[in-house]
Amino acid sequence: MKPTSSQQGRRWSLRPAWSRGYNLELASQDALAALIVTLLLIPQSLAYALLAGLPLEVGLYASVLPLIAYALFGSSRTLSVGPVAVLSLMTAAAVSPLAAAGSTAYVLGAVLLALLSGAFLLLMGILRLGFLANFLSHPVISAFISASALLIAASQLQHLLQWPLAGHTLLEMLMGLDWANLSWHGPTLAVSALSLLLLLGARHGFTPLLLTLGMPAKVAALLSKTGPVWAVLLTTALSWWLDLASMGVAVVGTVPQGLPSWQWPSWDWQWLQQLWMPALLLALVGFVESVSVAQTLGARRRQRIDPNKELVGLGMANLGSAFTGGLPVTGGFSRSVVNFDAGAQTPAAGIFAAGGIALVMLWFTPALAYLPKATLAATILVAILALVDGQAIKRTWRYSRQDGAAMLVTLLLTLVAGVEMGILAGVALSLLLYIHRTSTPHSALVGRLPGTEHFRNVQRYQVETDPRIATLRVDESLYFANARFLEDRVDALLSEQPALRHLILMCPAVNWIDASALESLEAINQRLQEAGVQLHLSEVKGPVMDQFKRSHFLQVLSGQVYISQFEAWQQLRQQLPVSQEAFDPQL
Amino acid sequence: MKPTSSQQGRRWSLRPAWSRGYNLELASQDALAALIVTLLLIPQSLAYALLAGLPLEVGLYASVLPLIAYALFGSSRTLSVGPVAVLSLMTAAAVSPLAAAGSTAYVLGAVLLALLSGAFLLLMGILRLGFLANFLSHPVISAFISASALLIAASQLQHLLQWPLAGHTLLEMLMGLDWANLSWHGPTLAVSALSLLLLLGARHGFTPLLLTLGMPAKVAALLSKTGPVWAVLLTTALSWWLDLASMGVAVVGTVPQGLPSWQWPSWDWQWLQQLWMPALLLALVGFVESVSVAQTLGARRRQRIDPNKELVGLGMANLGSAFTGGLPVTGGFSRSVVNFDAGAQTPAAGIFAAGGIALVMLWFTPALAYLPKATLAATILVAILALVDGQAIKRTWRYSRQDGAAMLVTLLLTLVAGVEMGILAGVALSLLLYIHRTSTPHSALVGRLPGTEHFRNVQRYQVETDPRIATLRVDESLYFANARFLEDRVDALLSEQPALRHLILMCPAVNWIDASALESLEAINQRLQEAGVQLHLSEVKGPVMDQFKRSHFLQVLSGQVYISQFEAWQQLRQQLPVSQEAFDPQL
Repeated sequence: MKPTSSQQGRRWSLRPAWSRGYNLELASQDALAALIVTLLLIPQSLAYALLAGLPLEVGLYASVLPLIAYALFGSSRTLSVGPVAVLSLMTAAAVSPLAAAGSTAYVLGAVLLALLSGAFLLLMGILRLGFLANFLSHPVISAFISASALLIAASQLQHLLQWPLAGHTLLEMLMGLDWANLSWHGPTLAVSALSLLLLLGARHGFTPLLLTLGMPAKVAALLSKTGPVWAVLLTTALSWWLDLASMGVAVVGTVPQGLPSWQWPSWDWQWLQQLWMPALLLALVGFVESVSVAQTLGARRRQRIDPNKELVGLGMANLGSAFTGGLPVTGGFSRSVVNFDAGAQTPAAGIFAAGGIALVMLWFTPALAYLPKATLAATILVAILALVDGQAIKRTWRYSRQDGAAMLVTLLLTLVAGVEMGILAGVALSLLLYIHRTSTPHSALVGRLPGTEHFRNVQRYQVETDPRIATLRVDESLYFANARFLEDRVDALLSEQPALRHLILMCPAVNWIDASALESLEAINQRLQEAGVQLHLSEVKGPVMDQFKRSHFLQVLSGQVYISQFEAWQQLRQQLPVSQEAFDPQL
Repeated sequence: MKPTSSQQGRRWSLRPAWSRGYNLELASQDALAALIVTLLLIPQSLAYALLAGLPLEVGLYASVLPLIAYALFGSSRTLSVGPVAVLSLMTAAAVSPLAAAGSTAYVLGAVLLALLSGAFLLLMGILRLGFLANFLSHPVISAFISASALLIAASQLQHLLQWPLAGHTLLEMLMGLDWANLSWHGPTLAVSALSLLLLLGARHGFTPLLLTLGMPAKVAALLSKTGPVWAVLLTTALSWWLDLASMGVAVVGTVPQGLPSWQWPSWDWQWLQQLWMPALLLALVGFVESVSVAQTLGARRRQRIDPNKELVGLGMANLGSAFTGGLPVTGGFSRSVVNFDAGAQTPAAGIFAAGGIALVMLWFTPALAYLPKATLAATILVAILALVDGQAIKRTWRYSRQDGAAMLVTLLLTLVAGVEMGILAGVALSLLLYIHRTSTPHSALVGRLPGTEHFRNVQRYQVETDPRIATLRVDESLYFANARFLEDRVDALLSEQPALRHLILMCPAVNWIDASALESLEAINQRLQEAGVQLHLSEVKGPVMDQFKRSHFLQVLSGQVYISQFEAWQQLRQQLPVSQEAFDPQL
């Protein structure tokens, strides 16, 4: 049963459900939240463009149309869409083999990536392929995010310390540095230190300070989350006042004024071949992260998140970004929390925030020219280090060795071999371990508890058995990964019980049987028959019987299908002669 | 429970179990079977070397030491190891991008492939990784074999008709032909026609003929399977007598005399990189096919096949082939059946057959010089077309659309994009469809059957429910593929039941919970708590409780774990006020 089926009727209407009954009170709440989100979105979108190796305005371009598109098509009321750190890192890793960072071709690559991942998301939404995200298990995603955060943090050293850093893996960065000739640039260091102080101060010391000043707790907590805004304002002012650029501090410089314009992303067959896989991974990672944020916030107000609608919303947001020259986007955690806490009621808050960014682009970009890049790098660093979950591996390893191993492999490979390799290896290992786990399902030879109709494991209970009748219970659906197990199990049974004449397969826990398992059953039936043993089934569920009826298995089955195991046991015992010496295999 | 554990003690002894109590009677039975198998193995090993694009003696090299190695290490008593058609096709596909067919480098490539796949098999056997073969579902293997058979049949046209054929996919072969200028070579066509007549005649008309001549049925059936021997003898004699080579019929020519010599396969880092994946696929396909043959024959005499021992046996056989300059080998279906039917009792029959081939190599290779290649091609054609299972797709499609789709994709891609692509796509699609299937497990909201302690689906039964208490039963173990489903399901429930205060997750069918599902449960618990709803569990199995105890989940769980669903229902109802109007969510 699909939980979403009740909403299908109104899914594709262009007028979103929330717009009905929209009124001035809701609008004023949304507008206030939008104001705060806009203030936060400016430094973030610049910083994440910097992280992706793109001209900074590309970050702003990705913060207008995508927000509107998501408001119209998405299902969360409070998700704040836009550039996020992990996707920027993945963008840089995907595009930099194709073009030099900052070049026109590089920008085109990032835009193409947004287009492709938007198309993937939209397609998955329309075809209801959201289950593809299930390939990314929690341990793999968690390890991937932690490793990405470390990579991002390391890469920001180039702006914080003005070190010449290159590469997209920890190895490349470490090997690329000219360790003997590293220099320290005083003014840049000072700006970095000041920014970090402001950011960490806002995060940890600001709330108590504001509380002692008599501010309501909620407002104080909210203000402490807008630390990046104050850091940007203060360092930009300082930079302008002291002319830090002339001292060699790298500043943002000219950001083109004006709204993002509609443009067709350019196509290139070879680039498509290079970028489709990164785009797919980007789409999946962005979706998984975004849905998790949306569901967390949605639950607080008992609002429903529809995963397929989320796919469409995020897909349209990315297409919107691509068609206005922006980079890939998704729902960001910190911004969404600020949006929620600031009282956003409907997705209109996102539309208002898009308006805010548009205003900034029209009139305020000249002020951004003085903003030191080190401040943006500090913003990234503080935001991203909160994502590193050092305890997760230990915790997961203790819970399950298999999941811990998948986590470790993802973490290490992401760090040393890059984001794509890391996530692909993690997914492959998860699948491998899962197949391993299900390839030997729990099974037991069972016998009758004397005087009852119950059948239990012969190794755990004193039960009635007969050397001529074996009953095997398999506690799992039968499919390709465990079909061979069944063959091996019966094979062993056959050689261990020379007196065997009847094998009953007891199926109360078998929910479905795929074509591989069906063929295995046929092979087992055939082999048993040649060895003079009849195969019977008992307690087969209704859906499985329906499946059997679509095949010729019931025609070739050498024995019978019994409703209950007890019935099978009774009838087969009656058929057999009382004396066991009479037994003679038909070979 | 591993069915093989009882045999662990004597697994690694070099003296095989069957050799104890070996006597003259067994030896004479084995020797007779070996004689017939040798006669069959000569044309087959030459033909499969021809198919692989190798000098024909390479096929003979692969038919001596591998047979001995398998006899010492394998677990089947009647499997006949040696070159087989499908592996030869895979060998040609893997090696031909690296070197010109028939060149010294090409032979080295085939030998390296045998070495690598032998190493993989041995490693899988020692590390008990046989479960890897489970990735190859029956539909994928079946489609792969059928498509390979068609490819092989098409490729043999070059020898049967002396057409200049190139390439390893149907597309390449069809595009490569110069259709306008195809010519027919009379003498070759005559040899092909004669060979096909003899082979098909032996297969279909020989048995009735021999029966009317008064021969015992078993002997007649066996003789009809040695058709290739008579075809080879007759056409070789004709070729020598009429000097067909001078008429332009391609003959085998000089085959070096003498036993295969011990040699170290040569290494090359770049080749290793190119060949490891084909070698792995080759190892898996060879293993799956061989075990299936071995189990089918083993069951007839209630003899046990140990899959891990099979891996070691086949691994040693391939290493043996590599170290004596041969191509990859595995257990062949037709030869094994002949071996069984001819009365082979122990693997000594394999050792005797190896001796037979050695004798041929020492003294009889000059006679092979006159053998027409068209006869070998006809042998391949007749053997391989029996493997095409035209009904399988229809049958599988009717049984399950998913398996049918996997089959179709494997079939088409193998034909048009090559063997590797075909099998990889088939495996990927099977996994995809499996993840899809398990990503939405069966689940139901349940309520109490009035007056009982049973809880059933609210949509199927008239049951007692309470808008403040919901009970969700999930009928599957929880793991990464369905963790998101659970979150979505609870998310929907929360928005649909505004009066909800308690959610009970009923777990009688949950056998294990992986780290992803655990995190999802924690997220669900957290979100429910923020919405003022307590999460409870009921009927949790013992192993799952053990898992929980290794995490901190039970500490953060907002509700309780109840032994029975009835207890949970009773206690929670008692806690709630009788009037429903008193309810007020804690938000």
